[in-house]
Amino acid sequence: MIGTIGVIGAGQLGRMLALAGIPLNLEFIFLDPAPTPSAAGLGEHIRAEFNDPAALNELARAADVITYEFENVDVAHLNELAKHTSLRPGTAALRFAQDRREEKRFFERCGLPVASWHEASTQEELEEAVASLSPPLIVKTAKMGYDGKGQRQVHSSEDAVDLFGALGDVPLVIEKFVDFDYEVSLIATRALDGETRFYPLTRNEHRNGILLESRALPGDHSLHLQAEQHMRAVTESLDYIGTMAIEFFVCGDKLLGNEFAPRVHNSGHWTIEGAACSQFENHLRAICGLPLGHPEVLNSASMLNLIGAMPNPAELLAIAGLRLHDYGKSPRPGRKLGHATIIADNESSLANRTQRVAEVLRTL
Amino acid sequence: MIGTIGVIGAGQLGRMLALAGIPLNLEFIFLDPAPTPSAAGLGEHIRAEFNDPAALNELARAADVITYEFENVDVAHLNELAKHTSLRPGTAALRFAQDRREEKRFFERCGLPVASWHEASTQEELEEAVASLSPPLIVKTAKMGYDGKGQRQVHSSEDAVDLFGALGDVPLVIEKFVDFDYEVSLIATRALDGETRFYPLTRNEHRNGILLESRALPGDHSLHLQAEQHMRAVTESLDYIGTMAIEFFVCGDKLLGNEFAPRVHNSGHWTIEGAACSQFENHLRAICGLPLGHPEVLNSASMLNLIGAMPNPAELLAIAGLRLHDYGKSPRPGRKLGHATIIADNESSLANRTQRVAEVLRTL
Repeated sequence: MIGTIGVIGAGQLGRMLALAGIPLNLEFIFLDPAPTPSAAGLGEHIRAEFNDPAALNELARAADVITYEFENVDVAHLNELAKHTSLRPGTAALRFAQDRREEKRFFERCGLPVASWHEASTQEELEEAVASLSPPLIVKTAKMGYDGKGQRQVHSSEDAVDLFGALGDVPLVIEKFVDFDYEVSLIATRALDGETRFYPLTRNEHRNGILLESRALPGDHSLHLQAEQHMRAVTESLDYIGTMAIEFFVCGDKLLGNEFAPRVHNSGHWTIEGAACSQFENHLRAICGLPLGHPEVLNSASMLNLIGAMPNPAELLAIAGLRLHDYGKSPRPGRKLGHATIIADNESSLANRTQRVAEVLRTL
Repeated sequence: MIGTIGVIGAGQLGRMLALAGIPLNLEFIFLDPAPTPSAAGLGEHIRAEFNDPAALNELARAADVITYEFENVDVAHLNELAKHTSLRPGTAALRFAQDRREEKRFFERCGLPVASWHEASTQEELEEAVASLSPPLIVKTAKMGYDGKGQRQVHSSEDAVDLFGALGDVPLVIEKFVDFDYEVSLIATRALDGETRFYPLTRNEHRNGILLESRALPGDHSLHLQAEQHMRAVTESLDYIGTMAIEFFVCGDKLLGNEFAPRVHNSGHWTIEGAACSQFENHLRAICGLPLGHPEVLNSASMLNLIGAMPNPAELLAIAGLRLHDYGKSPRPGRKLGHATIIADNESSLANRTQRVAEVLRTL
């Protein structure tokens, strides 16, 4: 085995990477500024800021390969690091993932259409963009936005008044609101030799910008093929290694690119129980140069995030086919504290079980 | 959540218990005399002998509930411990599991037939037993035997000469050799309130007394019902809490009891991938007073032990549906170093994949 995996970030994604890697006899070392992050008990923990060059060097010395569960790390630091150690995926993907303007231009270059958009670096440019695209629009900070943070809906030109300052005087992206039918994501893993394995499309429901529920989508071959084609274009242009997620809007029989994540992704958590090899294990296999696992789907699966407060575990565990993932984090409004995967041997039983989970969550 | 689980023993069973429990936000503390046992990285490790009273007390103080992955612990020490803390399963099961004579008498009291047997505490008694039962026979030390250790086959009265001394001058059990069709085991988990969940029967192949391969048995309703009935009798008479395995010989349409394990068991490892809730998670749910998981089998599954030497992981991981469990132990002839679970959506694909694994193992 390759030995020790260095992970930038020690949140729940790092935790689930380690839980997938320990059975492969991999060891883990995490870099994270939090005192007791979710993954800390599963490996060594270097407590330092993500951009601390000394800590990054310490990580590089201890690890055989470095990966990340968090994408807002300084690319210049990582490029320096990548001269001396294997950083997988590389920084090419990070650059596009850190800035929505770069991401959209990158999607367009890859032939993946996106919603009409403008950028703005002043209040005046913002107002011009709003007038030109015409509401309804979504205005997002170009950098550091996630889980619905740094976003505002603009339904009229009134909503744009003073918005540039309200969003922190930073570069913005103004997007035409897409009247999509639903949202899907594609999770795939690409190996060192370019071989790529695709999970089935996942249908996602968000609330207040946070993922609420994902469900593996059986069927719809045509949408899946389109998504695969886009995933291939994106990962090949980056010579990407590891697991990636692309989120799409479904508009009739067409897909529009929304955003991508150069890492394991919340909408792929159902693969732990629902697929023969999870997104986490496949990410590790890819970055270690091991053969990829087949993402065969053996069960019907859905996933619900546990956000803000944890339900009584006994209530959840009483539901057949449910697997609880408690990240061990302290509760805070809007915080992802865990998730529940529900599996079943048919779609109707899955729907019933998922409904029961939703009922438990509604009582919180 | 209940908090911290104390585990006596930190081998691969402890490791897999922890991997199942961490997603439930359980924490682990292990007692084991080895310097770097398999489970050590997944919790606190008290390095001491299993019968060290001070270490057992330390474990009791740190843990909310204590369980064991190893059954040869002094019952008197544990009874003392159980006055101050929850020990699950209790010591009643341990007493029978530690001595083959007690185990056989216990099985008989529970209505589970066993092969004809005698006990012997001298060479003379041994020779009398051999004459009375008449070969072929198997002679086993009454205590501390596992994985084929402390056993001899006796094909003629000649084989019994000096055998008492050769097996260490300890009490022996002499069993009539059973001409069974095959061996099966039943894994079940019993909760605090007595509710019991049964996994399907597993068919097991041994070589040199060590489990080589297990396969979840679809169908054979009548054998399964018999086994369930015996499991109910055994667990209820012990007021057992947790996961138990009983090994049976199949003789036509009848079952004979071979032995039982008051813990998670090697022949149930396939449940990690093959069932909706594994034997490990169900053991933890039971000892923590949580609702049991449904042992629904969603996939066809088999398991092969990796014994003595580890194959190149890349060769194994190239096989579809294979999940590797490397226990991180140093190789030694006859030592269980890991296992591979193979899952598939039908029996014929399972057989093909399992065959490919067996071929990789043959090259070692």
